[in-house]
Amino acid sequence: MNYSYISQLYCPKCGHTYGTSEQHQLCTCGSPLLVDYDLEGIKKHLTTDELTSRESTLWRYHELLPIEEAHHVVSLGEGMTPLIPFQELGKDTSIENLYIKDEGLIPTGTFKARGAAVGVSKAKEVGVKELAMPTNGNAGAAWGLYAARAGITSTIVMPEDAPKITRNEVALSGANLYLVNGLISDAGKIVGKAVKDYNLYDASTLKEPYRIEGKKTMGLEIAEQLNWEMPDVILYPTGGGVGLIGIHKALKELKELGWVKGKLPRLVAVQSRGCAPIVKAWEEGKRESEFWNDSETLAFGINVPKALGDFLVLDAIYETDGCAIAVDDESMLQEQAKVAQMEGNFICPEGAATFAAVRRLRENGWIEQNETVVALNTGAGIKYPDTVQLRPEMLEKDGSIVKADEGLVK
Amino acid sequence: MNYSYISQLYCPKCGHTYGTSEQHQLCTCGSPLLVDYDLEGIKKHLTTDELTSRESTLWRYHELLPIEEAHHVVSLGEGMTPLIPFQELGKDTSIENLYIKDEGLIPTGTFKARGAAVGVSKAKEVGVKELAMPTNGNAGAAWGLYAARAGITSTIVMPEDAPKITRNEVALSGANLYLVNGLISDAGKIVGKAVKDYNLYDASTLKEPYRIEGKKTMGLEIAEQLNWEMPDVILYPTGGGVGLIGIHKALKELKELGWVKGKLPRLVAVQSRGCAPIVKAWEEGKRESEFWNDSETLAFGINVPKALGDFLVLDAIYETDGCAIAVDDESMLQEQAKVAQMEGNFICPEGAATFAAVRRLRENGWIEQNETVVALNTGAGIKYPDTVQLRPEMLEKDGSIVKADEGLVK
Repeated sequence: MNYSYISQLYCPKCGHTYGTSEQHQLCTCGSPLLVDYDLEGIKKHLTTDELTSRESTLWRYHELLPIEEAHHVVSLGEGMTPLIPFQELGKDTSIENLYIKDEGLIPTGTFKARGAAVGVSKAKEVGVKELAMPTNGNAGAAWGLYAARAGITSTIVMPEDAPKITRNEVALSGANLYLVNGLISDAGKIVGKAVKDYNLYDASTLKEPYRIEGKKTMGLEIAEQLNWEMPDVILYPTGGGVGLIGIHKALKELKELGWVKGKLPRLVAVQSRGCAPIVKAWEEGKRESEFWNDSETLAFGINVPKALGDFLVLDAIYETDGCAIAVDDESMLQEQAKVAQMEGNFICPEGAATFAAVRRLRENGWIEQNETVVALNTGAGIKYPDTVQLRPEMLEKDGSIVKADEGLVK
Repeated sequence: MNYSYISQLYCPKCGHTYGTSEQHQLCTCGSPLLVDYDLEGIKKHLTTDELTSRESTLWRYHELLPIEEAHHVVSLGEGMTPLIPFQELGKDTSIENLYIKDEGLIPTGTFKARGAAVGVSKAKEVGVKELAMPTNGNAGAAWGLYAARAGITSTIVMPEDAPKITRNEVALSGANLYLVNGLISDAGKIVGKAVKDYNLYDASTLKEPYRIEGKKTMGLEIAEQLNWEMPDVILYPTGGGVGLIGIHKALKELKELGWVKGKLPRLVAVQSRGCAPIVKAWEEGKRESEFWNDSETLAFGINVPKALGDFLVLDAIYETDGCAIAVDDESMLQEQAKVAQMEGNFICPEGAATFAAVRRLRENGWIEQNETVVALNTGAGIKYPDTVQLRPEMLEKDGSIVKADEGLVK
């Protein structure tokens, strides 16, 4: 029995294949590369029953992950985040089985940890000593910290206005942190140049083939946590879209393994009205998106004007009869407050976008009342302290709480 | 088989006992109350083997928790946080088996979620409709959000200078949030008055008997994650000390159940030099602490000048041949950076205090090289964005990274 059943890398555009023991970035044709597994081999050796007693991290699926020797695994205990019923919000939106998959409970507080854990582990396995990447914040935080754990040096470039918390995470990891007086695309150009100048491993989104495998585990976990019954709909806040691509890949692999049966869930890409290139492409029936000019949204994790993997996101939507939908920032903030007050969960704005989309899609009938719906919250609300505005009452030391006629409590 | 084997509440000072189906606060003698279980009953019905296949939350130990009916459980997926080997820091401090128990991976980002999950669930079970509490931030965030999930109204009073993130968490939960122009002791007085005036359930530390049961699960998990072998030393950052009291209670219960054997781990209370009442009491061989005047530390979670449960903390230390130790703020910050750079984990200042204490206790020989040592990180570093100070290099849009002679990387 192998630790991993990885078989090769392949190009989803031109079909070219590559080995898995050397360093690879994009295909020679410019497309991202994907990982293939010997699923027949896994079928022979592993059953879903065996999984239940394994450790409660994403490494429980090691046969379906690309790391070939267990000692290369770099782990901070990531994965198996909770899938929690949202009964009150379900009632409020008329959905009988509404769940949150809560990626706030993971190292560094966002789902980016999955991509970093698997991506950095494989980088270690193929001998990477130095990596570089541009980031809007959370991915850089995750890669910086996991690289530190792996003993890999990292160079990370982020826009000056990326959230301070993520900047601090990167700095504390000991990474070489640079700020740029511009956007993530400017950071990307600087990284591209440094990668060439100094022969660094390029860990930019989809420019290495393995972070998608880490993100795939969200799909594996959802299936296992629903006892290998697939939900009807999965919604995902979509910037670069790697999470959605990963979930789609996971479900197809599980189906081929025979661990799940029937129709794949309808996958929904949720974007912000201020940056909705995938939604526009889907509405126009296109297979690729166009660059979205002057993008703007407070959910900065989905502020991605043109995703390298846009065609894979659109494929996932078309293949599963899914859809793409944009919500405005105000709806996000309203939904964030509703989720906290009804369910006790402080989700991030991107997660709130997903729940706002759930509400809209139920209202227009695209989601039916009796369907099982899983919405991804991609990070902890505490990483975005400035999205909440409040004016609490101020008391003096010797003050008292005065309960109004209508009761102490709002 | 019962869901819970709770048998009664008892007073550790005067021995008075109480039932468990009504609301109780302190004993009539003024002491906190503790929970008793029918451990013989559990012994007959539950084995450690059965635990392995249970859900990966603290509710896997429901027989050892006070909630009597499963449908009263209010959960956001808390517990079974990772126990992770810190090999590099272990080498750096000459400790062969050094672990972090990482309470950053829990709803609201701190261990306070454990106390809130169990405390709020039991409050719901005994019919509480409104609760009130003072907080320095993290406990209020956890109780506010879990209370929201339970449909319980909460009134929370915090000092004006408590961290903004926790203030936002409380506000977003829909709690009645009040700020006070003073310290947590001032907030406590205001809450005490409101509790009397409006007949609210007092959820202040140790004034209700159940949060300690939630925090106890850290001890249960450490034992299970070490395969029911006890470590030699457990270190805990100590403010109110409920975590340490809880861990001590857990280990004693496990021993009585026969699930662990031998000597209990030596328990270490870690405090800040700027607020070290437990350390002072321990150094003087006393059974209670004195109020610490003008306390000050950047690790505000352990800024507690006089803990209601101080005598229980000191008991735990004396009974296990443990110790109490104070570290300064600068050592904390240094250790926080070391942990991030060596292990990839962004811990909170309180957690960093524990690792600084590990280093000191190894240096002075109190911890031996071959001992198994577990240090608690009580929260995610991202909740304290202002502890990291940095000056990253700024690039223009068309700038480049210049690799110095000694290499690109520090």
